[in-house]
Amino acid sequence: MWKAPEHKYLVPEDGKFKIKDSRTEPENDPGKKKCKAELEELVEELHDLQRILYAHDHHSVLLIFQALDAAGKDSTIRAVMSGVNPAGCQVYSFKQPSAEELDHDFLWRCALRLPERGRIGIFNRSYYEEVLVVRVHPEFLENQRLPADVDWKNIWQHRFESIRNFEEHLARNGTIILKFWLHVSLAEQKQRFLDRLNTPEKNWKFSAGDVAEREHYKEYMHAFEEAINATSRPWAPWYAIPADDKPYMRMTVARIVVDALKSLGLNYPEVTADEKARFDEMRKLLHQE
Amino acid sequence: MWKAPEHKYLVPEDGKFKIKDSRTEPENDPGKKKCKAELEELVEELHDLQRILYAHDHHSVLLIFQALDAAGKDSTIRAVMSGVNPAGCQVYSFKQPSAEELDHDFLWRCALRLPERGRIGIFNRSYYEEVLVVRVHPEFLENQRLPADVDWKNIWQHRFESIRNFEEHLARNGTIILKFWLHVSLAEQKQRFLDRLNTPEKNWKFSAGDVAEREHYKEYMHAFEEAINATSRPWAPWYAIPADDKPYMRMTVARIVVDALKSLGLNYPEVTADEKARFDEMRKLLHQE
Repeated sequence: MWKAPEHKYLVPEDGKFKIKDSRTEPENDPGKKKCKAELEELVEELHDLQRILYAHDHHSVLLIFQALDAAGKDSTIRAVMSGVNPAGCQVYSFKQPSAEELDHDFLWRCALRLPERGRIGIFNRSYYEEVLVVRVHPEFLENQRLPADVDWKNIWQHRFESIRNFEEHLARNGTIILKFWLHVSLAEQKQRFLDRLNTPEKNWKFSAGDVAEREHYKEYMHAFEEAINATSRPWAPWYAIPADDKPYMRMTVARIVVDALKSLGLNYPEVTADEKARFDEMRKLLHQE
Repeated sequence: MWKAPEHKYLVPEDGKFKIKDSRTEPENDPGKKKCKAELEELVEELHDLQRILYAHDHHSVLLIFQALDAAGKDSTIRAVMSGVNPAGCQVYSFKQPSAEELDHDFLWRCALRLPERGRIGIFNRSYYEEVLVVRVHPEFLENQRLPADVDWKNIWQHRFESIRNFEEHLARNGTIILKFWLHVSLAEQKQRFLDRLNTPEKNWKFSAGDVAEREHYKEYMHAFEEAINATSRPWAPWYAIPADDKPYMRMTVARIVVDALKSLGLNYPEVTADEKARFDEMRKLLHQE
């Protein structure tokens, strides 16, 4: 089973990750220009690595993005993945669950959208919402029509266990899972909300509900810390990414994805001597036409 | 979490189930006529129970059927479920996996077809094929394009674990899981194959490949015994049903399904005093039209 290479923002599985020790600002910031240049190179590398992943056809890659509003999920996905052939890449944004989705267990709607072998799948939000926003707003559980005999006292622990088991099963069967928590500060989030209010072409992104959620900041941080600690594993690691500086965040995410793909050591499938001989025959046939 | 009521054919979770001690013929056979009459009553009960399940809308029911060819999976499903409203019931027969299905983990194609809350879903074959026919014919694993670093030595144990975890997650979230192994003897299977060869309207069911599988009988029994022991749990029990006598088998399966649904103690949702008052208003409005 694949295990993630070392990285300074990788959350270890010892359960000791503390959000208060996690940065929102870059460490040794190389500056906007250098970050952008490096991102450009990484996107090209990613383009080539995805082609090999597709030709090799044994692994799929699942990238999960979770964060507070305005932390930069959409723009990071756009910046990191825009150079990749869309035929080998799919993004799914999970919104409020539909009636059909609520009629299933909480992993179901995400399981439907898992990437196939050879492809990169991106979840913009995911089943982690079930232990984040639902935990902060437990009234959402009412819509889920859970059976009366649910063990309510242990519901979050049971959900963590379901998620761990699900991800371990996927990893054992060839899915490379990387999970990004984009850590934005309350101050930076405030600036970005103001920006959405003040820039006409960003107005559509503004939602009064998002501002109201700022009141629950502490509860969200508690939920994130517990979820990340309970589910960061070498085969499905969390990365706590400083999100106050967008160029740095994008470059960092791209670097982690590229390094993970490289660590697989994949190559285009080799052509055997027999196949090469058949290639010669085919070449002849085509020339003789 | 729901647990299955006692039954003489329920496989306990102690891992000591032995196929050689499991019957293929009825015990205290009440005879064809009595079995048919009882089945008819049970089908009516099931019809009513399913309506309550649907109105209550917190649980789904998943029935899994696994067996050798000609053990009676199709005809049992037909006999037991034909009285139930198809709007609350769905049967899915899993055949050879498609290219799209093989591009996902082995649980994926079954997860897609899970029943919604309020509904009964029936799997005619299932992910258990992955530890039965694939175990007897490990060459099928080649098509699955698993990653090179799979732990081949423990692959069946890992698949059992994936299945146990998957079923426990479903059970915790409201799915009632009942699994039926229809235990047919080699001698009875032979008769049924001959019957398929000799009866024109049964010819379409005959396949030479099915006969060839008889050679692997011992390997199949070993695979069944291990899979059943590894995955029979109170919230997702296996039942080893004698399958040489069809009326007895059908009646027995219907009895188990009915008893499981009854054990949930469901009722139509109660109307509160407030709602009743609103009903009175609505009644008035309608009469005034």
